[in-house]
Amino acid sequence: MVFKKITLIGRSTESFDAAVDDAVDRAEQTIENVHWVEVEELGVEVASAADREYQAEVTVAFELAEPQE
Amino acid sequence: MVFKKITLIGRSTESFDAAVDDAVDRAEQTIENVHWVEVEELGVEVASAADREYQAEVTVAFELAEPQE
Amino acid sequence: MVFKKITLIGRSTESFDAAVDDAVDRAEQTIENVHWVEVEELGVEVASAADREYQAEVTVAFELAEPQE
Amino acid sequence: MVFKKITLIGRSTESFDAAVDDAVDRAEQTIENVHWVEVEELGVEVASAADREYQAEVTVAFELAEPQE
Amino acid sequence: MVFKKITLIGRSTESFDAAVDDAVDRAEQTIENVHWVEVEELGVEVASAADREYQAEVTVAFELAEPQE
Amino acid sequence: MVFKKITLIGRSTESFDAAVDDAVDRAEQTIENVHWVEVEELGVEVASAADREYQAEVTVAFELAEPQE
Amino acid sequence: MVFKKITLIGRSTESFDAAVDDAVDRAEQTIENVHWVEVEELGVEVASAADREYQAEVTVAFELAEPQE
Amino acid sequence: MVFKKITLIGRSTESFDAAVDDAVDRAEQTIENVHWVEVEELGVEVASAADREYQAEVTVAFELAEPQE
Amino acid sequence: MVFKKITLIGRSTESFDAAVDDAVDRAEQTIENVHWVEVEELGVEVASAADREYQAEVTVAFELAEPQE
Amino acid sequence: MVFKKITLIGRSTESFDAAVDDAVDRAEQTIENVHWVEVEELGVEVASAADREYQAEVTVAFELAEPQE
Amino acid sequence: MVFKKITLIGRSTESFDAAVDDAVDRAEQTIENVHWVEVEELGVEVASAADREYQAEVTVAFELAEPQE
Amino acid sequence: MVFKKITLIGRSTESFDAAVDDAVDRAEQTIENVHWVEVEELGVEVASAADREYQAEVTVAFELAEPQE
Repeated sequence: MVFKKITLIGRSTESFDAAVDDAVDRAEQTIENVHWVEVEELGVEVASAADREYQAEVTVAFELAEPQE
Repeated sequence: MVFKKITLIGRSTESFDAAVDDAVDRAEQTIENVHWVEVEELGVEVASAADREYQAEVTVAFELAEPQE
Repeated sequence: MVFKKITLIGRSTESFDAAVDDAVDRAEQTIENVHWVEVEELGVEVASAADREYQAEVTVAFELAEPQE
Repeated sequence: MVFKKITLIGRSTESFDAAVDDAVDRAEQTIENVHWVEVEELGVEVASAADREYQAEVTVAFELAEPQE
Repeated sequence: MVFKKITLIGRSTESFDAAVDDAVDRAEQTIENVHWVEVEELGVEVASAADREYQAEVTVAFELAEPQE
Repeated sequence: MVFKKITLIGRSTESFDAAVDDAVDRAEQTIENVHWVEVEELGVEVASAADREYQAEVTVAFELAEPQE
Repeated sequence: MVFKKITLIGRSTESFDAAVDDAVDRAEQTIENVHWVEVEELGVEVASAADREYQAEVTVAFELAEPQE
Repeated sequence: MVFKKITLIGRSTESFDAAVDDAVDRAEQTIENVHWVEVEELGVEVASAADREYQAEVTVAFELAEPQE
Repeated sequence: MVFKKITLIGRSTESFDAAVDDAVDRAEQTIENVHWVEVEELGVEVASAADREYQAEVTVAFELAEPQE
Repeated sequence: MVFKKITLIGRSTESFDAAVDDAVDRAEQTIENVHWVEVEELGVEVASAADREYQAEVTVAFELAEPQE
Repeated sequence: MVFKKITLIGRSTESFDAAVDDAVDRAEQTIENVHWVEVEELGVEVASAADREYQAEVTVAFELAEPQE
Repeated sequence: MVFKKITLIGRSTESFDAAVDDAVDRAEQTIENVHWVEVEELGVEVASAADREYQAEVTVAFELAEPQE
C-alpha cells in the first residue's frame, strides 16, 4: 500500500495549533486513512485579514486506495 | 477556507517568464481561486528539444472548495 | 504541455530499490505519461512492521492531459 | 511599491504563539503597513531565564514608503 | 566548558507547546545544565494514536560535565 | 569598510526582470554604494492583483558609511 | 514517552541496503524500542578500503525508557 | 554513458534569460552532447559594472565521451 | 524586549577571524546591546583586491530599544 | 596535496547501487587517486528509456596531481 | 564497525580554530577512535561573555566499540 | 566572458585559514583570472592524519578563456 502526500494551508484567527488542526480537519473530511502530518511553514497574514490570521502549511500523508488517485 | 498547493512545470521555447505563465495558465484552466505561485526551479532542456526549452517548476496555491479534492 | 508532480511513498520489506519501484508501479497504474521520478527521502519503519519496512518518498513527474486534473 | 523584510525575535514566558505576537506587536508599533510575517525559528531559552522563555524568530514584511528607509 | 546537543521528540495530545515542554521536561530529569532548545520539526501523528498526537523534534543543548559523556 | 545586506521585494505587472529592477531602483534611491544583489525568491501574486503581479525577493548589499546605520 | 534520535554510519562492502542494515543491526543490539530510521547520507569510501565500502549515515529513533539516558 | 555536470556563470547587461543563454552558448562551443541545464543562482552585479550586469549561475549536464575528461 | 537581527559582511586582508571581528566591531560602534553573532558565509575576494581579502557574512542580534527602529 | 571534486551521473537499468558503481567506474578509468564519493541525488528516468533507468548523481573526490588540472 | 556521530559546541575567547580544537579535545578525552569532525556552525557570544566568545558547533564521528553505547 | 566554478579541498595541519589558502594557492598555480572563492565546508581529519588535519572545501570562480575548457 503506497502513501500519497498533499500540501494544505490551514488558517485560524486564534493560534498556530488551530491552523494546523484546520488543515487536518479539512483533510479528514475528504480523505480516508490519513496517517501523519508534517508542518512545513508557519506564518501570519496581517494586511488582508481583519485581525491577524495564523497560517500553517502542512503535508498530509495518507494511504492510497487502489483505483482512484 | 483551506488552501491547497500543487506542483506544475511550465515550458516555453522563448523565456522563463513564459514558462511560468504557461504553468499559471494551465492551473487557471481547471482550478478556481488561484491565489499565488512560487517559483521552485528554473531549467533548460537541450537534448530532447528541437531548440532550447525553458522550464519553470512552480507551486500553485488555491483556495479549496468544500466538497471536492 | 505542462508537467505535474505528485509525492508518493513506496514500501517494501526487501530493499530501497523495491520501495522506489513500488511507488513507480502505483503511479503507472493510474497515471499516463510518467516521465521521471526523484527520490526525496529513504527510511526504515521498524516499530509498526513485522520486519523492517524500507520506504522511499519520491516525486513523480508526468505530462498533464488537457481537461482533467 | 516595494516591500522590505526585517528579522525580529519575539519572546514570551508562556507560549510560542505569544512569542510570535510579541514580535508582530513590536513591529506594528514603529512600522506602518505590515503585510505578513514568516516564522523562521522556534526555540526555548532555559539557562539565562528565570523560567523557560519561548522565542520565535520571524521575518516581517511591510510596504516601504517612498523617502525613508 | 563544552556544550553537547542531543535530539529528542516530545509528544502531547493537546498542543505543540506541550510537546516541546514534554521533551524539555524529559531532558531536565536526567541532564543538568540544560541551556537552550531548538525546535527542528513539528508534526501530528494520526493513524497510530487514539486522537491526534502533536510531536516536536527538538535539540537540547547542555553544558557537559568533565568526566562522563 | 563593512557591507550591509537588506531584503526587498520588487513587483512588476510585466516580468521577473522588471520586478528585480524595481527593487534595485528603490534601493538606489535611498542607499549609496550598492554593490550587488542576490535573487532569493520569485513568485506571482494572482488573487489580490488586477492581473498577475511578478514579485522578486532580493538581498541588496551595499558598503556601509561610517556613522549612520 | 519521549523519543531520542542518534546518528550512526553503517558500512558494507556489498550495497547501500546492507550498509543501512548494518547501522540498524548495531542499534538494535544495544537499544530497545527502535521505532524508525531515516537515511541522511550515502557515500562510498574508496581510498582507505581494500575495495569500495558503501556507507550510510542514518538517524535512529527509539522510545526512551524512564531513568537512563 | 555517464553524464558530467559543470558550473558556469553567464552574464548579460540585458536580462536573466540572456545571462542563462550566455552560459549555455559558452558550454555548447566546447562541449558536445549538452543535455540539460539547471539554474542555481540569479544575481545582479552593480558596483563593478558600467550598468547593471545580470548573472546566472547554472549547472550544465552533458554526456561524457569515453576517453577524455 | 524584542531582538532584531541585521546582516553585515566584515572584511580583512589577514584572516576569517579578523573579518568576523571587523563586522562585530562595526556593529558595536552604532548598536547597543549586541547579544550574539552567527556566521553565515565565508569567502575570499581575489580579483578586485590587491591581495586576498577574507570576507565573513554574519547576522548580528541585538536587543531593540523601545522607540527607535 | 589538494583534493578536487567533480560531479557525475551514473546510470543503470538494474539498481541504484549499479548506477553509483557506474559513475565510480567511469571516474576510475580516467582519474587516479579517487578517495571517496558522495551520493547527491537518486532518480528514475521513465519516459526516454526503454525500461526504467536508475540514475545516481554523485560527487567524486580525488587527490589532485601537481601540474595538470 | 559502525561509526557514531555526536554534536558538541567548543568555545574559545581567542579564535574559531581554538573553539573547534576545544570540542575535539573534549571528545578525545572520553571517546576512543575519533575519526573526523565536521564544522556545522560558527558564532560569537557577546552579551553573556566578559569578552567575545567564539563558538563552533561540530559533529564528531568515532568508531563504535561493540558493547557500550 | 563566462565564469566557471570548480570545487577544491585544501588541507593544513595548522588552521582553517591555511587550508583555504592551500586551495586558493593550488588554483592560482594552474588557473588564470581567479575572481573569488566561497567556503563550502570546514572539517578536521583525525584518524588518518599524524596530527589533526584541517580541511576546507571551497568553490573557486574564475573567468573562462575562450577556447579551452
